[in-house]
Amino acid sequence: MTLIERCEKDVPDLIKKAAEKEPIAPEQLSKMIEKGRVVIPNNPIHDPDPKPIGKGLKVKVNANIGTSKDHSDIDVEMEKLRMAEKYGADAVMDLSTGGDIDEVRQRVIENTDLPVGTVPIYQCGLLKARKSSLVDMTSDEMFNSIRKHASEGVDFVTVHCGVTKATVESLKESGRLTDVVSRGGSFLAGWILHNQEENPLYEEFDYLLEIAREYDLTLSLGDGLRPGSIEDATDRPQIQELIKLGELVKRSRDSGVQAMVEGPGHVPLDQVSTNVKIQKELCDDAPFYVLGPLVTDFAPGYDHIAGAIGGALAAYKGADFLCYVTPAEHLGLPDVEDVKKGVIGSKIAAHAADIARGIDRDVDKEISRARRELDWDNMFDNVVDPEKAKRVRDEKNVADEEDGEDVCSMCGDVCAIKMVEEYFR
Amino acid sequence: MTLIERCEKDVPDLIKKAAEKEPIAPEQLSKMIEKGRVVIPNNPIHDPDPKPIGKGLKVKVNANIGTSKDHSDIDVEMEKLRMAEKYGADAVMDLSTGGDIDEVRQRVIENTDLPVGTVPIYQCGLLKARKSSLVDMTSDEMFNSIRKHASEGVDFVTVHCGVTKATVESLKESGRLTDVVSRGGSFLAGWILHNQEENPLYEEFDYLLEIAREYDLTLSLGDGLRPGSIEDATDRPQIQELIKLGELVKRSRDSGVQAMVEGPGHVPLDQVSTNVKIQKELCDDAPFYVLGPLVTDFAPGYDHIAGAIGGALAAYKGADFLCYVTPAEHLGLPDVEDVKKGVIGSKIAAHAADIARGIDRDVDKEISRARRELDWDNMFDNVVDPEKAKRVRDEKNVADEEDGEDVCSMCGDVCAIKMVEEYFR
Repeated sequence: MTLIERCEKDVPDLIKKAAEKEPIAPEQLSKMIEKGRVVIPNNPIHDPDPKPIGKGLKVKVNANIGTSKDHSDIDVEMEKLRMAEKYGADAVMDLSTGGDIDEVRQRVIENTDLPVGTVPIYQCGLLKARKSSLVDMTSDEMFNSIRKHASEGVDFVTVHCGVTKATVESLKESGRLTDVVSRGGSFLAGWILHNQEENPLYEEFDYLLEIAREYDLTLSLGDGLRPGSIEDATDRPQIQELIKLGELVKRSRDSGVQAMVEGPGHVPLDQVSTNVKIQKELCDDAPFYVLGPLVTDFAPGYDHIAGAIGGALAAYKGADFLCYVTPAEHLGLPDVEDVKKGVIGSKIAAHAADIARGIDRDVDKEISRARRELDWDNMFDNVVDPEKAKRVRDEKNVADEEDGEDVCSMCGDVCAIKMVEEYFR
Repeated sequence: MTLIERCEKDVPDLIKKAAEKEPIAPEQLSKMIEKGRVVIPNNPIHDPDPKPIGKGLKVKVNANIGTSKDHSDIDVEMEKLRMAEKYGADAVMDLSTGGDIDEVRQRVIENTDLPVGTVPIYQCGLLKARKSSLVDMTSDEMFNSIRKHASEGVDFVTVHCGVTKATVESLKESGRLTDVVSRGGSFLAGWILHNQEENPLYEEFDYLLEIAREYDLTLSLGDGLRPGSIEDATDRPQIQELIKLGELVKRSRDSGVQAMVEGPGHVPLDQVSTNVKIQKELCDDAPFYVLGPLVTDFAPGYDHIAGAIGGALAAYKGADFLCYVTPAEHLGLPDVEDVKKGVIGSKIAAHAADIARGIDRDVDKEISRARRELDWDNMFDNVVDPEKAKRVRDEKNVADEEDGEDVCSMCGDVCAIKMVEEYFR
């Protein structure tokens, strides 16, 4: 039985455990899973810690790791994984495209209690590209790659089922600035155009659901046609694909398969709220997994900041799961330090959204109480990166006898907090 | 005659120059200045480039520089100034509190064409504190410090006129978590409590207006009681002070003195829009100059990101001028690298807001067009930090013969853009 089916009968232990850290009772959470408003990616072969994603819950963060052709050191990937865990990622996706892809994936699954996601079409396409061309992938090969990942314990997979003959047609007519920026989306769009056939992942979606049921695999319905620039945001191809994804959410739920929906991408601030609302409506409140979104195209090198802005607003408006963006986005493969910066950017965004939705406010209260008391140690214990906060303070502060050690080098002896202590209390 | 008065008669050359880079005609801009909806900090003694701040214009960014007791090297301040200019700050405030404060300020004014702001009460209070105690400042000393700064060419000054007996009383009754975090605010709150007298900057506001008229000094009405934590956001003391600032905006305008209003601080995402709207209403659309705002207290070391999130949303909702927050906030005095990061964070926020308000979209279009064409040089020319973008790409990419030099190490030979080129065009 899949998790959805188990929730129909009872409140499984997994749900009880998941509810512990969420502002929701286990019974309610179970109902939300049953209705598909919340997903918990959990392939029993891997059985990671439950990280429920969806309506009313704490916003979750995903970190993409993985090799590429130019950077394929497995040890580096293990470091990225540890870094993602250390700074509070709730899931990791292994997007490896270089070196021994199987080995990396297996090592990631073995070495983390976080849910692990993959995009099986990458490996499938690459294997084919080495022999002939991506567009020669067969339907069987696509499904077999998904089955292989699931059988090894992958908890959720991105499947670009919404890239269809019809949506590709919509794309061709749209006159987009940046046609397709999703890698998986480009594989399938290329495949459709070359073969003049329908996307097997769409046409044989029932078969995909069979595989998903077998491993209780969570589907992350990919947005292969997501906008890749501010100019293209919220255009016809994007929404056309989203309509299809909404249909597939329903079919997934009807089959007892958990499904979430991926979203953009590049979205100007004035369209972020609309993007969340249209997804929630078209997909009947399925969990929304956004990439960023980036609120400008002009921040390569700092896209973790552009993504934090978009992610915070999206999550406040109802997005449930933030895929991080690192400073390396648009420039190259993220390294370990990029992973750290990406996770921290998204954690700040997720936490800001939680605060705004009335969840998880005690952390900030504790930090500010400590700050008022110039209790630096307690403040540092609760911040997003205690090591960095402590290091910066140590570096910047030359305590002398007059100042004592309690103030900081910004104000020194004219510290506002000390002034208030003196005259106010 | 002050700029407001000159705009009543004619369209001054300064306004014509200012309008060149804005989505507004000189005549309209002149009217907006006259009505006080836009300010251009410009003390004729300094006569910096005009940077109009206010309704319908491009969002502007301020960088705070300045020494403290522990870090008082003038050359470092000159480096900070150059860094702020390089990454696109529209104004700098010299908040020096250490070393030769006069010398730093004069050097800053001499060496920049950006408008320069200061907070004269810092120097006034510090001089007094060295001799006896801050609370011994006399009214004359406060005004003389403002006059001194103005006479040297300072273009705008923060004056904490809204910290009054009544607002301090409101503060005492409020049970705030973090009472006063504004340094100038704490000076004046301490002064009021100790002396049991009214704030001279409020009580003798007409005298302040006389000085401002004399030098055509722009007043930045400080929010000495701004919330210093998420918990305290949008509380009675904050709004009580804002009501007072609204009165003073009117009095400034009636006297031909340009005035803008400073705002928080720490504000959760769900209150950002409200904060902008209440300011615009209570202050009759006076330009709104916000510090961040920070959307969480838990990001010391990364407050440039927390500030970029809040700043982007605030500016999209109508805030006009973003005071940057650096990664050093809450920890120590920012160094040169912090200044760079702070300016870039705020520029991303300001630009994101401009895009969302329909201004300045061509930059992103050009960048994305270049990206589609894998025209890296043209892309880099237009991004927020061309040097960094280029460096990251160079470091991360090991071009080989097969890939060519056009792709990046993220996807290498399975670049989505190349896929599309191959099958789509």
